[in-house]
Amino acid sequence: MSVPALRPDPARLISDLRRLASLTATDAGAQRVAWTDTWAAAREFERELLGELPVTIELDAAGNMWTTLAGERPEALVIGSHIDSVPDGGWLDGCLGVLAGIEVLRMLAAASGPPPFTVRLVDWADEEGARFGLSLMGSMAATGRLDPAFVAELRDAGGVTAREALAGHGVDVTRMPEARGGLDGAIGYLELHIEQGPVLESRGLPLAVVSGTYGAERWAVRFTGQAAHAGSTPMDLRRDALLAASRLALAVRELAGAHGGVGTVGRITAEPGIVTAVAGLATALVDQRHNDAGALAAAHAGAVAAADAIAAEERVEVEWSPLFQIHPIPFDAGLIDAAAAIVEELQGVDVRLPSGPLHDAAWVADSGVPTVMLFVRSKRGLSHTREEDTDEPDLALGLRALARLAVTVLSG
Amino acid sequence: MSVPALRPDPARLISDLRRLASLTATDAGAQRVAWTDTWAAAREFERELLGELPVTIELDAAGNMWTTLAGERPEALVIGSHIDSVPDGGWLDGCLGVLAGIEVLRMLAAASGPPPFTVRLVDWADEEGARFGLSLMGSMAATGRLDPAFVAELRDAGGVTAREALAGHGVDVTRMPEARGGLDGAIGYLELHIEQGPVLESRGLPLAVVSGTYGAERWAVRFTGQAAHAGSTPMDLRRDALLAASRLALAVRELAGAHGGVGTVGRITAEPGIVTAVAGLATALVDQRHNDAGALAAAHAGAVAAADAIAAEERVEVEWSPLFQIHPIPFDAGLIDAAAAIVEELQGVDVRLPSGPLHDAAWVADSGVPTVMLFVRSKRGLSHTREEDTDEPDLALGLRALARLAVTVLSG
Repeated sequence: MSVPALRPDPARLISDLRRLASLTATDAGAQRVAWTDTWAAAREFERELLGELPVTIELDAAGNMWTTLAGERPEALVIGSHIDSVPDGGWLDGCLGVLAGIEVLRMLAAASGPPPFTVRLVDWADEEGARFGLSLMGSMAATGRLDPAFVAELRDAGGVTAREALAGHGVDVTRMPEARGGLDGAIGYLELHIEQGPVLESRGLPLAVVSGTYGAERWAVRFTGQAAHAGSTPMDLRRDALLAASRLALAVRELAGAHGGVGTVGRITAEPGIVTAVAGLATALVDQRHNDAGALAAAHAGAVAAADAIAAEERVEVEWSPLFQIHPIPFDAGLIDAAAAIVEELQGVDVRLPSGPLHDAAWVADSGVPTVMLFVRSKRGLSHTREEDTDEPDLALGLRALARLAVTVLSG
Repeated sequence: MSVPALRPDPARLISDLRRLASLTATDAGAQRVAWTDTWAAAREFERELLGELPVTIELDAAGNMWTTLAGERPEALVIGSHIDSVPDGGWLDGCLGVLAGIEVLRMLAAASGPPPFTVRLVDWADEEGARFGLSLMGSMAATGRLDPAFVAELRDAGGVTAREALAGHGVDVTRMPEARGGLDGAIGYLELHIEQGPVLESRGLPLAVVSGTYGAERWAVRFTGQAAHAGSTPMDLRRDALLAASRLALAVRELAGAHGGVGTVGRITAEPGIVTAVAGLATALVDQRHNDAGALAAAHAGAVAAADAIAAEERVEVEWSPLFQIHPIPFDAGLIDAAAAIVEELQGVDVRLPSGPLHDAAWVADSGVPTVMLFVRSKRGLSHTREEDTDEPDLALGLRALARLAVTVLSG
């Protein structure tokens, strides 16, 4: 492998991204929802691009698409991301990492000899969970944490089961656990993604190394008071569940200030939920995240204590129902340092951020494969909308960072 | 009229109430929604009860049902309420006043001669507004404040227009304003109603005189921030509309404490309204009520100022859209005193309360007819639900108070 000669082509990547968008987006945005015809069309485009390269392509039992460029040794560096999108999504979320991975394969294939290690590009199936509500499906299968019986009975909004929909794309749900093993012998896992947040933009920088993914505590918190007429019930005789939920929303913010990380109430529902009634029931959806398990536990405990105190003061009952929980997953220290050196070289500043959103990389890292991600700046922090955007020079820089990091690991 | 001999029969009233419930309620509660077959059946039951009396019955142009017991003079004391209910409603809201009015007519008709003044019982059409969203429809028509063009185009949840539905009950919407005049020459208007609130129960008393109805300021307050990913957006870069709405809910309560009256946020909606997103839009439905116009204006101005301050601190925009406004309507001072004397005689304590809920009596009073209402205790303050209830001794006391008040006015 003749390292100095290796250069990826940003213009080609950007052209590929634009072509993918023209094939799979409507005026409302990207429509590459997993297990749909448009998603299959996106993968057909992927195969078309890969057709020019000396690679083999295979689907595993979970529908993950693996492309292999043989190296001197069978152990592989894995580059991954996902081509699927949310409905009405953006032109970069997921597919940037896949198409940048293809560009890295092109670069490596153009070298004078095979790379020292095998290189595999994985396009994870159904990262977004947009159709069946289960995100990171493909990487869960590949890391041995998928329950096929659970998946089989998931239904989309139209009542179609995952069993039926996946079968239409060549996946037998009962055999999905056989995808386990795709990462065997991996020497590392790299993923380039847009930040999907405003931190890099606020700091005026294009690139960051991702230090790991946040742990999350996600709960529905229901307060039960007494529904009452808004006109005839004096203030001192009320047991207003909506006021309790409102106070919890403010407490969750305060706890993020005290413990770090982030804390959000994204929705409060009330019953009867009309302008002329004191709410007898109110449910707040609480999401707390932190990259430190102890701090996350403290923030969650703080929210439970705050809700208890609020419930006592407002004379309402409180009940917590779990929605989702995950521990913080740190990425590989050595890879973080290697990536940080490249980022510093490219932009003059070493930036390391935890990722609030989950990514397939989290399950890969949690399964023991040395993992790191690179973030490229998102304009206005927007994602999961057609307004999602990143300037072309930033995309080019992200590609260069990914390519250099791949070469560094392969040369390691 | 031989006053000492006049006594209403509480057992007969309670029997009538139970029979009405058996005819028009399901397991889910009362179903006497105006402009439905069940409402018509309730009125058929009314006619059956009235058939034994020397009265005339007529429907006015707005569907209000007037029953007249001729007196020595044509000027009339009017007793009123409404037989219609909300869906899944209670066994007392509205119909207590109508059936108690029938019992008063029975009592007066049993006297040795005609009463000194004519007595008219009015069953207002569509007090609840449950089907078309416009409450107090019949009394609005009778007091000259109804716009028939507006009413005609109202649609129910099934898309049926009020024009069609009312025609099915003999009402030509274009002619509804002709109901004006039903109150001409009225010497007074009396209405007995359940409290629909918890004040009397909290004070351990069965009866109150209603001093008037609260004025109301009812608004939708929309905060516009920036929708963002709950995981990737640091706390200090957020513009969280739901937190702004939550703070306004708390401010509305504080303002009721400062200015008196009541203040409620019964609903907060958020967009995107999911657990993993900071809300970019949030709308709070605000309802403020007071029996003093100046205090109501101050409380409303306080809410506007609080929303502006919150919006500035949270870096969001705020916009107020009116839903409903009405000024406080005081009842007649002389009738309040007369009713209070009777209430004090019956329960030993003179209690006067403003009414938070609106009633047809408010429009009657506002049109210049001397008006007063009597409230009878509601158990747990509940109404608009099948759990609505009042103990029979309290119902009996309410009937006695109404009957004595009618006799007092007629003898005046």
